[in-house]
Amino acid sequence: MASNRGVVYLGPGKVEVQSIDFPELKNPKGKKITHGVILKVVSTNICGSDQHMVRGRTTATAGLVLGHEITGEVVETGEDVEFLKKGDLVSVPFNVACGRCRTCKEMKTGICLTVNEGRAGGAYGYVDMGGWVGGQAEYVLVPYADFNLLKFPNKDQAMEKIRDLTMLSDIFPTGFHGAVKAGVGPGTTVYVAGAGPVGLAAAASAQLLGAAVVIVGDMNKARLAHARSFGCETVDLNEDANLADQIAHILGVPEIDCAIDCVGFEASGHGAQAKTEVPAAVLNSLMEITRAGGAIGIPGLYVTDDPGATEKAAKTGNLSIRFGLGWAKSHSFFTGQTPVMSYNRQLMQAILYDKVQIAKAVNVEIISLDEAPSGYAEFDSGVAKKFVINPHNLIPNVKKAKAAKETAAV
Amino acid sequence: MASNRGVVYLGPGKVEVQSIDFPELKNPKGKKITHGVILKVVSTNICGSDQHMVRGRTTATAGLVLGHEITGEVVETGEDVEFLKKGDLVSVPFNVACGRCRTCKEMKTGICLTVNEGRAGGAYGYVDMGGWVGGQAEYVLVPYADFNLLKFPNKDQAMEKIRDLTMLSDIFPTGFHGAVKAGVGPGTTVYVAGAGPVGLAAAASAQLLGAAVVIVGDMNKARLAHARSFGCETVDLNEDANLADQIAHILGVPEIDCAIDCVGFEASGHGAQAKTEVPAAVLNSLMEITRAGGAIGIPGLYVTDDPGATEKAAKTGNLSIRFGLGWAKSHSFFTGQTPVMSYNRQLMQAILYDKVQIAKAVNVEIISLDEAPSGYAEFDSGVAKKFVINPHNLIPNVKKAKAAKETAAV
Amino acid sequence: MASNRGVVYLGPGKVEVQSIDFPELKNPKGKKITHGVILKVVSTNICGSDQHMVRGRTTATAGLVLGHEITGEVVETGEDVEFLKKGDLVSVPFNVACGRCRTCKEMKTGICLTVNEGRAGGAYGYVDMGGWVGGQAEYVLVPYADFNLLKFPNKDQAMEKIRDLTMLSDIFPTGFHGAVKAGVGPGTTVYVAGAGPVGLAAAASAQLLGAAVVIVGDMNKARLAHARSFGCETVDLNEDANLADQIAHILGVPEIDCAIDCVGFEASGHGAQAKTEVPAAVLNSLMEITRAGGAIGIPGLYVTDDPGATEKAAKTGNLSIRFGLGWAKSHSFFTGQTPVMSYNRQLMQAILYDKVQIAKAVNVEIISLDEAPSGYAEFDSGVAKKFVINPHNLIPNVKKAKAAKETAAV
Amino acid sequence: MASNRGVVYLGPGKVEVQSIDFPELKNPKGKKITHGVILKVVSTNICGSDQHMVRGRTTATAGLVLGHEITGEVVETGEDVEFLKKGDLVSVPFNVACGRCRTCKEMKTGICLTVNEGRAGGAYGYVDMGGWVGGQAEYVLVPYADFNLLKFPNKDQAMEKIRDLTMLSDIFPTGFHGAVKAGVGPGTTVYVAGAGPVGLAAAASAQLLGAAVVIVGDMNKARLAHARSFGCETVDLNEDANLADQIAHILGVPEIDCAIDCVGFEASGHGAQAKTEVPAAVLNSLMEITRAGGAIGIPGLYVTDDPGATEKAAKTGNLSIRFGLGWAKSHSFFTGQTPVMSYNRQLMQAILYDKVQIAKAVNVEIISLDEAPSGYAEFDSGVAKKFVINPHNLIPNVKKAKAAKETAAV
Repeated sequence: MASNRGVVYLGPGKVEVQSIDFPELKNPKGKKITHGVILKVVSTNICGSDQHMVRGRTTATAGLVLGHEITGEVVETGEDVEFLKKGDLVSVPFNVACGRCRTCKEMKTGICLTVNEGRAGGAYGYVDMGGWVGGQAEYVLVPYADFNLLKFPNKDQAMEKIRDLTMLSDIFPTGFHGAVKAGVGPGTTVYVAGAGPVGLAAAASAQLLGAAVVIVGDMNKARLAHARSFGCETVDLNEDANLADQIAHILGVPEIDCAIDCVGFEASGHGAQAKTEVPAAVLNSLMEITRAGGAIGIPGLYVTDDPGATEKAAKTGNLSIRFGLGWAKSHSFFTGQTPVMSYNRQLMQAILYDKVQIAKAVNVEIISLDEAPSGYAEFDSGVAKKFVINPHNLIPNVKKAKAAKETAAV
Repeated sequence: MASNRGVVYLGPGKVEVQSIDFPELKNPKGKKITHGVILKVVSTNICGSDQHMVRGRTTATAGLVLGHEITGEVVETGEDVEFLKKGDLVSVPFNVACGRCRTCKEMKTGICLTVNEGRAGGAYGYVDMGGWVGGQAEYVLVPYADFNLLKFPNKDQAMEKIRDLTMLSDIFPTGFHGAVKAGVGPGTTVYVAGAGPVGLAAAASAQLLGAAVVIVGDMNKARLAHARSFGCETVDLNEDANLADQIAHILGVPEIDCAIDCVGFEASGHGAQAKTEVPAAVLNSLMEITRAGGAIGIPGLYVTDDPGATEKAAKTGNLSIRFGLGWAKSHSFFTGQTPVMSYNRQLMQAILYDKVQIAKAVNVEIISLDEAPSGYAEFDSGVAKKFVINPHNLIPNVKKAKAAKETAAV
Repeated sequence: MASNRGVVYLGPGKVEVQSIDFPELKNPKGKKITHGVILKVVSTNICGSDQHMVRGRTTATAGLVLGHEITGEVVETGEDVEFLKKGDLVSVPFNVACGRCRTCKEMKTGICLTVNEGRAGGAYGYVDMGGWVGGQAEYVLVPYADFNLLKFPNKDQAMEKIRDLTMLSDIFPTGFHGAVKAGVGPGTTVYVAGAGPVGLAAAASAQLLGAAVVIVGDMNKARLAHARSFGCETVDLNEDANLADQIAHILGVPEIDCAIDCVGFEASGHGAQAKTEVPAAVLNSLMEITRAGGAIGIPGLYVTDDPGATEKAAKTGNLSIRFGLGWAKSHSFFTGQTPVMSYNRQLMQAILYDKVQIAKAVNVEIISLDEAPSGYAEFDSGVAKKFVINPHNLIPNVKKAKAAKETAAV
Repeated sequence: MASNRGVVYLGPGKVEVQSIDFPELKNPKGKKITHGVILKVVSTNICGSDQHMVRGRTTATAGLVLGHEITGEVVETGEDVEFLKKGDLVSVPFNVACGRCRTCKEMKTGICLTVNEGRAGGAYGYVDMGGWVGGQAEYVLVPYADFNLLKFPNKDQAMEKIRDLTMLSDIFPTGFHGAVKAGVGPGTTVYVAGAGPVGLAAAASAQLLGAAVVIVGDMNKARLAHARSFGCETVDLNEDANLADQIAHILGVPEIDCAIDCVGFEASGHGAQAKTEVPAAVLNSLMEITRAGGAIGIPGLYVTDDPGATEKAAKTGNLSIRFGLGWAKSHSFFTGQTPVMSYNRQLMQAILYDKVQIAKAVNVEIISLDEAPSGYAEFDSGVAKKFVINPHNLIPNVKKAKAAKETAAV
């Protein structure tokens, strides 16, 4: 059990599966911790925010083990762990949080004050997030395990829904957080900017929250088609039309109640500008279409420094925002990393009781650990898929099973 | 147009359709009002709280025109009415509210301070609620019309869904309010006490809000069967089992997250006591099964005076509540008339966009104005139906149409 | 009574007291309204946002009657007015609101949908806010009077505190709204950007809300001295030091819990840039000093179009905001016109029961209507005063009384 | 350091200071815990809820070490304790909470699911609260120390305000919680039932929250006099007048905005019934005087079983509540143990920055550990004092110092 393999970032555009250290009950500074557990990773997903690093849009350095969307089985527990035991199947919130500081006590686990010396908030396998080793691997350490982990009540039942439950570590809560902050509730009209996995998760979340209509906007036609497959309306941003007109075409009015930005700082323009990076494009368009008094949830990532930005101001995180427009409409803006723990238990229940089909909404595809590099490449090409790595082959590989079936059928 | 007919309460167990005055733009004291409209009633529902009066459990006196669940078409507008015009199809919240007092400005329209001299809160056709004439009639006055009325955006589209939209005047918002106050949201487990129309509306509301499981408890087997027809779990309170055990049988744990009391003061006991009136039975059982920290929404009516009560204390509204149990579990309790206006717009949207089938959930049956007395009797017998009066025959009578069809088929 | 005089904007830097029309019960389109009242103006304050117009930073055209901070006595009532009568002394929220539209029903009276054809939200005497005539005059019309007006319970008692109560029409609720949205409560540390009247009102509000420390930052030394006079800490932005260091010097830590932007779009830089207009300077500095998870209340005005801006982007309301910084700290941002009605009743009580000295905090100076032009000029020069116009000489003029006393003493 | 002495309950009316075990890092079941600390107790207060036990109104058995209001200095830390070290001065919330269960993660630390096998919620030195040893002693164990403890930022500064800071472990947050749940804010009118220490803390909290008027009602004239000493209005419940009339005499109206029940189940009647135990007396009177739409915060303790009750129904916690009255007024009711951690940090700041004088409000008297039995007796007699035990003589005894001074002066 002392061997381990993981997905390692080697430089812009380059990731590789390598042998890595087997995790120990120590924090990134090497101090022994009694509150941690070691997990055998059952599933671990590739995330759009991993792509920011892999594309070279961050200061991540070679050697970083990637992966912050993790579900696993407890194989070792520290002495202070009281409520988990070997064999438990658990979901890992992507935020590393101590559960003991001021912000954790406010359940703002996305901005824990102690797990990262550089700033508020920690995560696994992410640049500037505290140095916690990533979980796109066979084994991973989770600190403050009693606090951080969500145990599935029934392991067999959970394994049957593992494609859905694996989304609890990040994108389902992240999309849901965006929807909640945007004020989505029964009967609301919702616009989701971006049809990547977080956008689709936000759309599914809005449906679960009872939204009357969910409209998803993107330039990627395959992703828009997938959004339509589970009941969303869509807007194609390649088109030259004004977004407000496109909304009016669907709703009869040019405004929506609630807006969710699932794009973040790598935004492109609209219509003719669809190929150009315009970092404030999404925020500015959301202020235009959100009704007076509405709220804008912003799970999409904005960064303090973006060395790869095309605009000079954007290199230091400065965006040209038409803030006066939002002010005139009394908008509220909600930013930041999602505190996964605030939502994962209730969303687990929604999955277990069949109230949401999140795996279908984000179009899960299971791949092996060795297929991770190609998964990264394929995801970056814009396919409408969410890749889930299966390091121990514990999840039936539907794609291969299907291929085998088709081969057999021939 | 100067004639009018309405359902009149004549004494315990006795209602009759009689000629009544055509409404004028005057308040109950006879003062002219410029802010009112006259409606031609399109649909008006019989409510469980009407039954409290008709059963003689209140101080209502003969001659009272019944009806507070009203949908109608504007036929006359006062001079101050700016945003409604003749021909508009509107839903009337059962609360009469001025929109100008302190509590209305807090959107607590169920306890308006000016429309009822006796206490906070007014309603149409109800004892002690300000003397506003009821709407189980051909025509009815609505004061403060711009404030009170919800206009449907498209009349034809609305008439197609009138069976559902007619529930916006009371029981859908009332059930929804109970669910909201009980903290229902995605992934929650919910218990609804009572499978009458408000209970079924609360159950449908909980589903719309994303609940993982909705359990409805009652002693009426037909109503429980109806609850199961749209996906609820049910508990038969005739059974001798302990409620917590019945819950555990369904959920695996003896507790629910959120509880809604849709029964009120005419509650009966459980099991062996199922035929006995025990006014605090529902409240006490909800404290038992609601998890620590949970909330109890109480849309079911409790009264200050109940001359017909079997217990002496209950005659003055005193109930024997095991309050210490709720205290030990840090429960919160939310009471009172639902402020319909806080919810009707969004629930209208949920209906218009097909996110909820409220008419099906409460099992609407359309009847003519002349059938109202038999509707009251049938409803009192405990049928699993919600009767909707159709005074101008504007709603196609599905029952009769179906009967005709079946006859023709023979 | 048919004569009237008011303060009229004539062009950049130019205001004059002129004869104006006596108000009629008609809306700006000339339609008769039954829901309005005519007020004899008892007090009406000069506001910093009036200065934006007078400085020529808006598209206001000559002839506009200024004034949206109004307290008055009812002298005429429309037929639909039920809860006010001649002689009542009332505070007028600066927002004109109908009380009948969707946003008003949500108590977001700053963005009423019906009183202004151009956009959401109306106000008296303000460009682009619906054409309602200003109240820096002897008489003024208030529409939807029952809804809009706050009646003082006892007229004599109110006249004794009129210097304080006159602040209920705008700046006290506006400062309070900023504080509430920023999350100010007992024990919080608060930074208020700007020591003008709104900033001082925000500081006094934060104290009323129980803040542990209130720090006010500005470049105007007289205003900072005034802030210290009622218990605030201050930061002089002329100094070259970093704001976070200045905060740390006071609190021991470089962060505050709650931030309030009382400056808006005419912001200047800090230290060396103190004389340069840097429209995003305040927002960017607030993100720097607000703790992770904190909120930023933004009562300071940001505009959609600013023809007088020095930066080109700012002319269309685009500001260079370091949004990624706020995102990294999970900040929330709350913008827009204050819905005065949400707060004025409770703040009136706080004044009447001596829990706050708002007139002292903003340093009220009473002037006559004819002194209004010089009041505008003096206020624009940056004096630490809030000018209150006294059109009917109903408020004892403390300054003159004091001068007379001093003269007599000589 | 291995010796320890504590206040031990020996039977109704009997407490004694005895030698007790020195605490070990073990939980009540004897299991070793790494997350705990041992505190040298600096101050520990006698609480009204201790009196319920000492009066024999609970099932507490002889031998129980009392005390749940504790402030102390860390003298030993478990291996898992990361953020506290020897010498730190800390406030102990009376709730024992794990910080790892579902309700703790909702910050409902009053109903932790793991620290007490019998029910939700644990406490030190209290019957049925999990068996954690009380802190009216020289030394005490605190489990989950990083989570539970509030460290004072500066020890010397804290020792100067220790009379105030010692109230953070229970009654100040408890009174504050009642006020918050009752909706107290700037400008509200508040009624506090009960002038014992929790009532006085609720009154001081309401003032800190900006209340316009705080009215305290009790039958104990000395306590009422003390309430007046810091600016409260008072109502003497011995008087024969109706409470609503007494309120009207003060406010001009017979209603208050917010009500706080600081009495609980050992309530007495009003006027002629002032000597009789009427367990629902407070709840029923609060529904009478609270305005429609108001909330009732209930920090006063209600129990599931009260073997010493005079009414038979009350022995099993059943109270005769006029629930219909609250329902007619749309009241909300909030019960349960206060989650101290939700409030103690901000209230510490309010104390450290001199925004509240809680020690003065509750009239602190410092006594030695050996004086504890007489402190219990004196408190039970109804004196207007809050007794603070000083086991290591670390707090200057003002009373004795004053006496010495007076003696010296003679």
